[in-house]
Amino acid sequence: MANIKDVCKLAGVSKATVSRVINQTGQVKESTRNSVLAAMEELGYQPNTLAQALATNTSNAIGLLLPNFRSNYFGSVLHCAELGAQQAQKKLLVVNSKNSADGEREALDTLVNQRCDAIIVYSRHLTQQALVTLQECYEVPLIILNRLLDSEQLHSFGLDQQQLADTAVEHLCQLGHQRIACITSPMESETGQIRFQSYQKTLEKYGLPYQPHWVAEGENTLETGYEAAKQLIAAGVEFSALFACNDDMAIGAIRALHDHGLNVPKDVSVIGIDNEPAAAYAIPSLSSVSLPIEQLTDDAVRLAIHVGNKCSSEPVHYRYVGSLVARESTQPYRES
Amino acid sequence: MANIKDVCKLAGVSKATVSRVINQTGQVKESTRNSVLAAMEELGYQPNTLAQALATNTSNAIGLLLPNFRSNYFGSVLHCAELGAQQAQKKLLVVNSKNSADGEREALDTLVNQRCDAIIVYSRHLTQQALVTLQECYEVPLIILNRLLDSEQLHSFGLDQQQLADTAVEHLCQLGHQRIACITSPMESETGQIRFQSYQKTLEKYGLPYQPHWVAEGENTLETGYEAAKQLIAAGVEFSALFACNDDMAIGAIRALHDHGLNVPKDVSVIGIDNEPAAAYAIPSLSSVSLPIEQLTDDAVRLAIHVGNKCSSEPVHYRYVGSLVARESTQPYRES
Repeated sequence: MANIKDVCKLAGVSKATVSRVINQTGQVKESTRNSVLAAMEELGYQPNTLAQALATNTSNAIGLLLPNFRSNYFGSVLHCAELGAQQAQKKLLVVNSKNSADGEREALDTLVNQRCDAIIVYSRHLTQQALVTLQECYEVPLIILNRLLDSEQLHSFGLDQQQLADTAVEHLCQLGHQRIACITSPMESETGQIRFQSYQKTLEKYGLPYQPHWVAEGENTLETGYEAAKQLIAAGVEFSALFACNDDMAIGAIRALHDHGLNVPKDVSVIGIDNEPAAAYAIPSLSSVSLPIEQLTDDAVRLAIHVGNKCSSEPVHYRYVGSLVARESTQPYRES
Repeated sequence: MANIKDVCKLAGVSKATVSRVINQTGQVKESTRNSVLAAMEELGYQPNTLAQALATNTSNAIGLLLPNFRSNYFGSVLHCAELGAQQAQKKLLVVNSKNSADGEREALDTLVNQRCDAIIVYSRHLTQQALVTLQECYEVPLIILNRLLDSEQLHSFGLDQQQLADTAVEHLCQLGHQRIACITSPMESETGQIRFQSYQKTLEKYGLPYQPHWVAEGENTLETGYEAAKQLIAAGVEFSALFACNDDMAIGAIRALHDHGLNVPKDVSVIGIDNEPAAAYAIPSLSSVSLPIEQLTDDAVRLAIHVGNKCSSEPVHYRYVGSLVARESTQPYRES
């Protein structure tokens, strides 16, 4: 594989000169230009596409901004995005944001600076108004992931969080459970709030009691699910079912119940949300709500590629729903 | 937050002109330059750091090339790399490679084009010689992750794969197991080959029989671990212990044994490698070998930042070892 140094050597010029010829910037003598081009041809040297693209202000890359890289959920988003980008012969540039609005602004700035054709943004902290303002500042189209907006300036793709949580809690209600505890996602996140409100509303719909001390907060991890369940058990809460706001917390909670001599599902039915791969292989296998992350990400990447190719599009807003996957961890209520 | 458009408006000039002032490229009249600078000051506008850095050919970013984003292992690498970069006030740019030597070359090219200060490369397909050749082509320092090289041109940080596998298999041998089956990682990978050879050598060391039909190949996932174990059971292999070359395959295998009426650890002891978070919360909890991924990644990122700041360093080569974490899934052999 010939590189720029080989071209320099053969043409007998500096790297800066070769670079000026490739990028058509700055003054180069006609004779020098010709010998550089001849050397490139002789060596079969392909100049960097980006070196050229810098002049035209595009990078042939799609940007992806995520809050972090450490979860099965974001792993799936990354995986689907990389496949979609590869199929379209685009590069995918990924950055993560710090856990704040400023951190998200900064990360977005990084991708804008890298001259992405379009940027897919998973934002937790920026309001719709803040996102619209950013879109007004930047020429590159922004596609908002996992948020349902009604903006006329931004595209958005989001899960119907209420439907997901309703599906999980209704499953427990329909199995006859009346004392249903809850382990929430972080309550400062919009997702955490909506899922918790759905829990409350569904209990109300089924005429079931709601008790604040039946609720413990987790941070979406196995460990915090384990700790939250231990906390509910230690508080003497008697529940026959547990709604955990994601699968990792559900699996952690099942282990805590197990360590406390409680059998799932005999003593307590447990359901999560995400239907992550581990749910199917856990003992007991975990009932959950399956999310169409692949579909959502595919659609977002396809739109990013479309608008990144300067094809205009009216802002679109897609809402995705989940479906129940009932497994061993939930069963009809039986008096013990 | 003021943006370049605000500056254009206030100074009454085009974006190209503002850009020329910021980047100190091209001719700008002194009076125009002054009014642009005054507008920037009045609005508190901070020009993009990269827009400036392009001129100096650096981006203040560290590049990270990974084979894929979908596993707990790479999730940890990403997470540690992002923390290390943040602490050093560097951006982290991440790309994934297609599963081939050409795919890795292409992904590396993308990061070089983005003007990273240093690039951390997790390569599965490029030989040491190919990596050295690439280092000779590029000025940016390359730091090879998860490979133990002896090169004088490249830095490398790698796990001692043989020690990891030896630790797992020795644990089973020391518990008195004599018929030890194995689920391998993909055998086209160097890691897969070394772990499998360690399994064979350790059996030999303990004077235990090795049978080709006691071995099934997986692809490091829950699903393939499940399928490989089903295959061993269906073939009538009688084993009292199972070495799975990673935790996901071990957890999948435990579920397959469970579905076949076999209890872990009573009937079969199972061990994995990785000590991923799920290992501690599984039922039964999984014995495994803990890897110092955080330490390895921290060290690699720290070196990347050091050499990225144009501080030279003699090539370093670090080898990391793992440690046994014995849990419920393994127990001493008892005749059944």
